[in-house]
Amino acid sequence: MHTQEIIGTHPDVKGQTNQALIRAIEECYDCGQSCISCADACIGEQEVTRLRQCIRLNLDCADICFAAGAIATRRTGSNEEIIRSTLENCMLACRLCADECQKHAQSHEHCRICAEACQSCEQACQQAVQTLGATH
Amino acid sequence: MHTQEIIGTHPDVKGQTNQALIRAIEECYDCGQSCISCADACIGEQEVTRLRQCIRLNLDCADICFAAGAIATRRTGSNEEIIRSTLENCMLACRLCADECQKHAQSHEHCRICAEACQSCEQACQQAVQTLGATH
Amino acid sequence: MHTQEIIGTHPDVKGQTNQALIRAIEECYDCGQSCISCADACIGEQEVTRLRQCIRLNLDCADICFAAGAIATRRTGSNEEIIRSTLENCMLACRLCADECQKHAQSHEHCRICAEACQSCEQACQQAVQTLGATH
Amino acid sequence: MHTQEIIGTHPDVKGQTNQALIRAIEECYDCGQSCISCADACIGEQEVTRLRQCIRLNLDCADICFAAGAIATRRTGSNEEIIRSTLENCMLACRLCADECQKHAQSHEHCRICAEACQSCEQACQQAVQTLGATH
Repeated sequence: MHTQEIIGTHPDVKGQTNQALIRAIEECYDCGQSCISCADACIGEQEVTRLRQCIRLNLDCADICFAAGAIATRRTGSNEEIIRSTLENCMLACRLCADECQKHAQSHEHCRICAEACQSCEQACQQAVQTLGATH
Repeated sequence: MHTQEIIGTHPDVKGQTNQALIRAIEECYDCGQSCISCADACIGEQEVTRLRQCIRLNLDCADICFAAGAIATRRTGSNEEIIRSTLENCMLACRLCADECQKHAQSHEHCRICAEACQSCEQACQQAVQTLGATH
Repeated sequence: MHTQEIIGTHPDVKGQTNQALIRAIEECYDCGQSCISCADACIGEQEVTRLRQCIRLNLDCADICFAAGAIATRRTGSNEEIIRSTLENCMLACRLCADECQKHAQSHEHCRICAEACQSCEQACQQAVQTLGATH
Repeated sequence: MHTQEIIGTHPDVKGQTNQALIRAIEECYDCGQSCISCADACIGEQEVTRLRQCIRLNLDCADICFAAGAIATRRTGSNEEIIRSTLENCMLACRLCADECQKHAQSHEHCRICAEACQSCEQACQQAVQTLGATH
C-alpha cells in the first residue's frame, strides 16, 4: 500500500508521519478484507449453522475496520478524539471477532487466518492509540 | 425506508422490533448522507479554506454513521457490546460534527441542516443505547 | 431523509435539484439497508444453505447501493460519466438481487420485502440515468 | 494483506485462486486508501479551490474501489456479471481520477502518488476482467 508515502505528502504532515498510525491504517484494510472473506467462506461451509455468530462478528468487524481505516487516514484539521474512540471501537470488534474465529480455527483455515488478522489489527490499533494525546 | 418492516421479519425477531434501534438505524443513514452532502457543499464554497475542519468532521462522521447503520441492522447471533460501543462512537462523532456545523449555520444552510441531522442522530443513538442491556 | 433539502443548498445547485436523482439517492440507501437486513435474516434461517446465492447477491447489492448513494449525492465539480455508470451498475445489481429474492418471497417475508426495495431502487436509478446528459 | 491466503481456504476455491482477481482486490483497497488521502491532502492545500475536481474524483473513486474490493472478494454462490461490471466501473473511475491527478502531479506529490495508485488499480482490474467468463 502507498499509505506512508501518500500521507507523508500531506501539507500539514510534511514527512512527519506517525508510524504506528500508518501501520494501524494498513492493518484495518487487511483485517476488513479478511473479515469479509471469512464471513463469505463461513456462508459456503456445510456447517454454516454453527458459524452464524462468526459470520455476524466478521461482518460487524469489517464495517468498523473500513471506517477506522478512512478516519485514521485523514490529516486535514483535527479530530483526535474521534480517531481515538474509533480505534478503540475497532480494537474491541477485532478482539471479539478473533475470539470467535479462534473457536473454529482447527476446523476452518479461514477462521484461523481471520483470527490472526484481527489480532494483528487489534495490536496495531492499540499501539496507534498510545501515540495519541493523553486527553480524552 | 423498509427498516422496521424488514427487520421485523428476521427469524429471531418475529415482529418484536426495538423501535428505538430502528429509529437509530434510519437516522444513521440520513445523517451519513447529510454529512457527505455538507462536506461536498463546503468544498464548493468560496470560503472553503475556513470550512476545512467542518469538512473533516463531516467525512469522519459519515464513515461512522454508515458503519453504525449496518451494525445496528443485524440480528443474527448477538453482538450487543459492539452495537453499544459503535452507537456511542456515533454519538460522539455526531456531537462534534453538529458543534462545528453550528458555527457556520448562519452563513451556510447546508451546515445548518447537517447540524440538525447530526443532533437528531445523536439523540436517536442515545435512546437506542438506553434500550440495550446494561452489562457490556 | 434530508436529501433534497441539503443538496438544494449546495452553492452550485441553488435549489435546482434533480428530483429523479434525489429519489435515486434515497432509494439506494433504503435498498442497501434492506439488502444488509435480508442477508442477515437469511443467515439466521433454518434453510440457510438454500439461501446462499441470495445472501451473496444481497451483500454485493448493498455495497453497490451505498457507493451509488454517495456518488449521486456529490455536486462539486462534475463526474457525470461516473454517476451514470455507477447507477447502471446499481440497476444491474438490484435486478439480479430482486430476481433471486423473488424466488424465496413466498417462504421468507424478508426476501419479498427486499425484492420490492430492489425493484424500486432499480426503477429510481433508471429514471435518474435518463435525466443525465446523453453523451457517454 | 492476507487476501490470497484467506480466499484460497474458501470451501469452493480450495487453493485454486484467480491470481489476477486477488491482485485486483489488493489494488482496490490500496487505491481507495490513496484516494481518501489525496482528497484529504487537497482539502488542506492553499490552492484548494483549484483542486475541487480532483477532490470530487478522488472521493467517488474511493467509494467505487471499496465496493469493488468487497465484491471481488466473495466466492460463495456466483455473481460474475456483477464482478465484471463493478470492475469495469472501477476501471473508469480510476482512469478519470488518474487523468485529473496527473494534471496536479508536478505541484502536489500526493496527486502524483494517487495517479500512480489509480493507474495500477485500473490495470489490475483490466487483467482481472479478462480472466472472467466471456458471456455478458
